[in-house]
Amino acid sequence: MQQIQQLQNSINQYIANKRYGASPAELYDPIGYIMSLGGKRLRPCLLLMACDMFGGDVEQALAPALAIEVFHNFTLMHDDIMDKAPLRRGKPTVHEKWNANVAILSGDVMMVESNKLIMQVNDSILRPVLDVFNNTAVGVCEGQQIDMNFETRAIVGIDEYINMIRLKTAVLVGGALKMGALIGGATDSEGTLLYNFGEQLGIAFQLQDDILDVYGDPEKFGKQVGGDIISNKKTYLLIKALELAQGETLTQLNQWLAADDFDPAKKVEAVKSIYNQLGIRERAEAEMSQYAEKALQNFEKINLPDNRKTVLKEFADALLVREY
Amino acid sequence: MQQIQQLQNSINQYIANKRYGASPAELYDPIGYIMSLGGKRLRPCLLLMACDMFGGDVEQALAPALAIEVFHNFTLMHDDIMDKAPLRRGKPTVHEKWNANVAILSGDVMMVESNKLIMQVNDSILRPVLDVFNNTAVGVCEGQQIDMNFETRAIVGIDEYINMIRLKTAVLVGGALKMGALIGGATDSEGTLLYNFGEQLGIAFQLQDDILDVYGDPEKFGKQVGGDIISNKKTYLLIKALELAQGETLTQLNQWLAADDFDPAKKVEAVKSIYNQLGIRERAEAEMSQYAEKALQNFEKINLPDNRKTVLKEFADALLVREY
Repeated sequence: MQQIQQLQNSINQYIANKRYGASPAELYDPIGYIMSLGGKRLRPCLLLMACDMFGGDVEQALAPALAIEVFHNFTLMHDDIMDKAPLRRGKPTVHEKWNANVAILSGDVMMVESNKLIMQVNDSILRPVLDVFNNTAVGVCEGQQIDMNFETRAIVGIDEYINMIRLKTAVLVGGALKMGALIGGATDSEGTLLYNFGEQLGIAFQLQDDILDVYGDPEKFGKQVGGDIISNKKTYLLIKALELAQGETLTQLNQWLAADDFDPAKKVEAVKSIYNQLGIRERAEAEMSQYAEKALQNFEKINLPDNRKTVLKEFADALLVREY
Repeated sequence: MQQIQQLQNSINQYIANKRYGASPAELYDPIGYIMSLGGKRLRPCLLLMACDMFGGDVEQALAPALAIEVFHNFTLMHDDIMDKAPLRRGKPTVHEKWNANVAILSGDVMMVESNKLIMQVNDSILRPVLDVFNNTAVGVCEGQQIDMNFETRAIVGIDEYINMIRLKTAVLVGGALKMGALIGGATDSEGTLLYNFGEQLGIAFQLQDDILDVYGDPEKFGKQVGGDIISNKKTYLLIKALELAQGETLTQLNQWLAADDFDPAKKVEAVKSIYNQLGIRERAEAEMSQYAEKALQNFEKINLPDNRKTVLKEFADALLVREY
């Protein structure tokens, strides 16, 4: 069994050594660029851990693991165009550094590259692995579209929100784990248990992200604390607050949401105080714990000795106690 | 053996009955929309013809044939954003009818759908078919980027131009044929002969398109005759003219290329007259014939009875004598 750090080193080295096409440069340079911006490489690590857990050869899983990371970065490249984001991990986004056309087309070819990489598995599991990959990819696209739709909708339900983050974030976590399991020799039903574990873990992770955006330690949180409040992002917290707030509290919340010209710090403070009044943090944490609990129930059903399950279990635990 | 019309009917019916996802509507409606705009369905027909030629079951090839058409339309959807095209087959493009974000994301999910469709082949040929599909997809992306690069370059060589149209147009013709051949039971080397046939046929077809844009019958040509001249598009004709023109002729040609404010009909007439002076049409036709000839040489090497090869041969011949 390999420890997380070892797996992370392997995938980082594999990413650093990987060359995509060379010409035309406008098509391939952005791939090297976005892949070099770093990140925690969570998704490929999850694939490797799942493979290792079932006794598979981690070396053989590196190309499929990279496929997940290339696919993830393709979605980031296109999402950044759609969101008009100027920065990605503190560096100019591809459509800013080059232009939108380059970002569209480089993203397209990244998607093809990820398809080529995911195919580097044994013939016996090629079809099941590709089925997971394609279903995951469809889910991610649906999630992104639903997320964009939310921006122009006045009311979004909690169930709709959970479904959106499931699609946009969690199916890829589940998919990476299931693909890793299949590569490692797991049966389809073992793979499905791990998929469910990952999907629910992913939802819990995203709910935690929503919480940290408001309540995270500014010293440790990578992004601006309160960013979601400033931009009226429909997170679990805001949706729940709109559901629970009444009378004067609701009026105040709606005023802040409608405000065009405001002091960001004051808006964050005011909305946070409404959240506190309504006990939103506790509710969000309870919801998050529920998904973490469901995730673990699936994980426990996987019939492997505990010592094989430790690495992934510890990784999942660590994911959900971060303060950043 | 099925005749072209039968195959075309089969694929048209299959396209008309196909449903993609339902929700979110913004993601899936544009797929139904662009697929309903019609077109000659050349690429899926080629796949079916190749399958039929080798004695395969055309019914079983319909999903992979649709994969090619969905992939082709995905590239059109993204190309239209990049080219800022308002119309596609006389109807508003997806980014005009919805918006650019919808066109990006719908295109992305079409790419995934095409991957799912192309997988509907027997396990024994899944990997080789996917290899052709992925290599084709990479080629198309490279071709589109090279084409965009040409717009801002002063000088483009004939070889570079041929390579661009090979990637942007011809690899998909070759790929569709090779995939159809493999599905029909052809060996890899037979598939490769058909691929080469298709690639060279595709280049000839694109050269003919360049010729028809200037010399086509306005009654029959679907697009505005002279459109390439008006927009200074670097076609075979313009590149060759820039290569051959000297003295006063070159000065005149460059003046028309630099003109901001001009009468379109006058520009078309003047540039066409320069082309005529330089014998550009004859050169383009000679180049086109060379590729058609090379295509046929590959086709003849395929070891099948002539009666099995008639349909595809006639289709190819018809492709290259069109006046529209």
